[in-house]
Amino acid sequence: MSQDLIRKLAVSNESKIVFLIIDGLGGLPDPVTGLTELETASTPNLDRLAAEGTLGMSTPIGPGITPGSGPAHLSLFGYDPIEVEVGRGILDILGVDFELQKGDVAARINFCTIDKEGVITDRRAGRIPDEEGKRLCKQLDEKISLPGVESFIIHTKEYRGGIILRGEGLKGDIPDTDPQAVGGKPLPAKARSPEAERTAELFNDLIGQAKELLAGEEKANMILVRGIDTYHPLPQMQDLYKLNPVCVAAYPMYRGLAKLVGMKLVDIPSTASIKDEFDALEKIWGDHDFVFLHIKKTDSAGEDGDFDKKVHVIEELDSEVPRLFALAPAVIVVTGDHSTPSLMKSHSWHPLPTILWSGRCRRDSQKTFGESSCIKGGMGRFNAQALVPLALANAGKLLKFGA
Amino acid sequence: MSQDLIRKLAVSNESKIVFLIIDGLGGLPDPVTGLTELETASTPNLDRLAAEGTLGMSTPIGPGITPGSGPAHLSLFGYDPIEVEVGRGILDILGVDFELQKGDVAARINFCTIDKEGVITDRRAGRIPDEEGKRLCKQLDEKISLPGVESFIIHTKEYRGGIILRGEGLKGDIPDTDPQAVGGKPLPAKARSPEAERTAELFNDLIGQAKELLAGEEKANMILVRGIDTYHPLPQMQDLYKLNPVCVAAYPMYRGLAKLVGMKLVDIPSTASIKDEFDALEKIWGDHDFVFLHIKKTDSAGEDGDFDKKVHVIEELDSEVPRLFALAPAVIVVTGDHSTPSLMKSHSWHPLPTILWSGRCRRDSQKTFGESSCIKGGMGRFNAQALVPLALANAGKLLKFGA
Repeated sequence: MSQDLIRKLAVSNESKIVFLIIDGLGGLPDPVTGLTELETASTPNLDRLAAEGTLGMSTPIGPGITPGSGPAHLSLFGYDPIEVEVGRGILDILGVDFELQKGDVAARINFCTIDKEGVITDRRAGRIPDEEGKRLCKQLDEKISLPGVESFIIHTKEYRGGIILRGEGLKGDIPDTDPQAVGGKPLPAKARSPEAERTAELFNDLIGQAKELLAGEEKANMILVRGIDTYHPLPQMQDLYKLNPVCVAAYPMYRGLAKLVGMKLVDIPSTASIKDEFDALEKIWGDHDFVFLHIKKTDSAGEDGDFDKKVHVIEELDSEVPRLFALAPAVIVVTGDHSTPSLMKSHSWHPLPTILWSGRCRRDSQKTFGESSCIKGGMGRFNAQALVPLALANAGKLLKFGA
Repeated sequence: MSQDLIRKLAVSNESKIVFLIIDGLGGLPDPVTGLTELETASTPNLDRLAAEGTLGMSTPIGPGITPGSGPAHLSLFGYDPIEVEVGRGILDILGVDFELQKGDVAARINFCTIDKEGVITDRRAGRIPDEEGKRLCKQLDEKISLPGVESFIIHTKEYRGGIILRGEGLKGDIPDTDPQAVGGKPLPAKARSPEAERTAELFNDLIGQAKELLAGEEKANMILVRGIDTYHPLPQMQDLYKLNPVCVAAYPMYRGLAKLVGMKLVDIPSTASIKDEFDALEKIWGDHDFVFLHIKKTDSAGEDGDFDKKVHVIEELDSEVPRLFALAPAVIVVTGDHSTPSLMKSHSWHPLPTILWSGRCRRDSQKTFGESSCIKGGMGRFNAQALVPLALANAGKLLKFGA
């Protein structure tokens, strides 16, 4: 269903919606117990939401498609993730609060180590610390100069940063210069299309200048450029849904995704705990009618193959949920962006257990939050793009369609 | 979801996928027992797959749409069956291993009997046997000559054959010349569009020559032309899904469908039993990573309205399934192309009971294979086009989408 219809029907009111997104939430059952991470965890508060709400299974992109976090979140926010592909460079840079402008070309950089033949010996420059990365980005930003365009080099985290090129006629249709392995040389920036040729030349110029400027460094003596893309602003949630949305997320990429769709970012450190995030939630509660609350560590535990840790993170989150009850939102959605089964140590295509809770959600007969109960839930199987319209409707924010 | 996305993400690996397609599998419950054919049959081996796998209900085309075998199979193979319509002439001719070329116009022919006024008295020419059909097709193939195009007349089965016209600027946009009833005369070939006018003239020329050549025959003294279409090769499964697919099917039409999407055809007779098909499966097992195994007789029994026979065919199939276990595929999909309830004696629109079995399928709580259990299964309701992407994902053959 098109966003155009939602845009036409959406109206503002006082009701508040919370999207509690538990990254990598979906799992696979432990072969011995037959229970997934979520089903193993003791979650009295999420179970209360499940019992009072309606459950279902959400597909992030399509059957069999394992999503990255970018498309998975865009789908949760109600955007078509196949139509709207956004490069990782854009997301990281938005996440550190740099104000991108339409037509900017953005990319991530990794500092790396090369030997005197130019061969990469460490793709992460010995994981240099934040202050080191910050110093080098500042140096490059001040010294690099390109013909006819502005350039910005900003630091994001440790050995990582971002490049922004600003000017007329740029196009980020250029693959990574990172060969993805040590033992090779950095690749030249190479346009995929004629319109990107000048931009590729500018990147090569920039990389050449950076190499000279970094020549004296012991570890970070070269840069690799990744996730190059042109920034095209998306329709904003304010305009599409008449919401005043805010993001409570610690990691830059999720902050970038939130900013891309118009959310205000709450200022919390990337090391914030789940409790810290709920503290932040309480502070901004009066100022917004849509909150995207992002929990990262479930996904990290899944990626590490640590079933028990994923269980514990879910339990830690559950213990904070009463604070959400206390704020009395009109609608709560609890789901993930994608599954990350500990047994697979990776994202997967499996659909997501989902709760839709509101006073008007048409409660089903399920009493607990888990993959097995969600299969039998009242929402059945649906695409994640359905969640924003459903939440708006449950909050009384969608007018009737047609006479 | 578009095949383009799947094409971008698909990668090859060693894992093997089996699509066990039980033609006309879905049924309606016997009014006395309340059980369908599948639920009446004793199927310990399919039940084992159901218990270890996840179940669901598959819709071949769309709600309420009763599919022919062509679109139903295209949907199973992951193609949009509404976008990709393929004439029956094309399918029959591909099924007998004739190498069609892009732009060929192909049609089926039936030999028929006409009286001296030219009125059809038997649309199947007394069902003349194979050797008779073969002799007549050979004669027509050798003697017929058309201006500016090549023509081929090939035999398929009994009183049926195929015509292929090859040359520049042909278009098969022409309805059948078969009036579908005795007592009328064969219709002239008539173009539906200006671009098909020359092709219609060529068909009328060909039919005229055939009538003269067959004038001395007692039964098969005329031909009716059906299912005329232009051959446009489809994207092949090798390219779309990076698979090396093979078809184990006895009937020409299913072989044609398989060939249309790039499958290699295993050479088995059209009279092959289910056991023969499993014999063939074992022989080719090492050479392919995708097997389409087609069981026809369930559909025939359903079309005959023979509930018990359909039950027996399902039981006969079930007894061979352990041979599939022994081959240890990574993924098994068991479903049908469409329903053929014995109570209706015809194809129907009802969704299909489906098993998806793999080590990563997220097992549900259902223990048996039947329409009632599949309604409660973990896959819920889905379109048949989802099955190839799901199977690829479960076999580890799809990369992650997006950052």
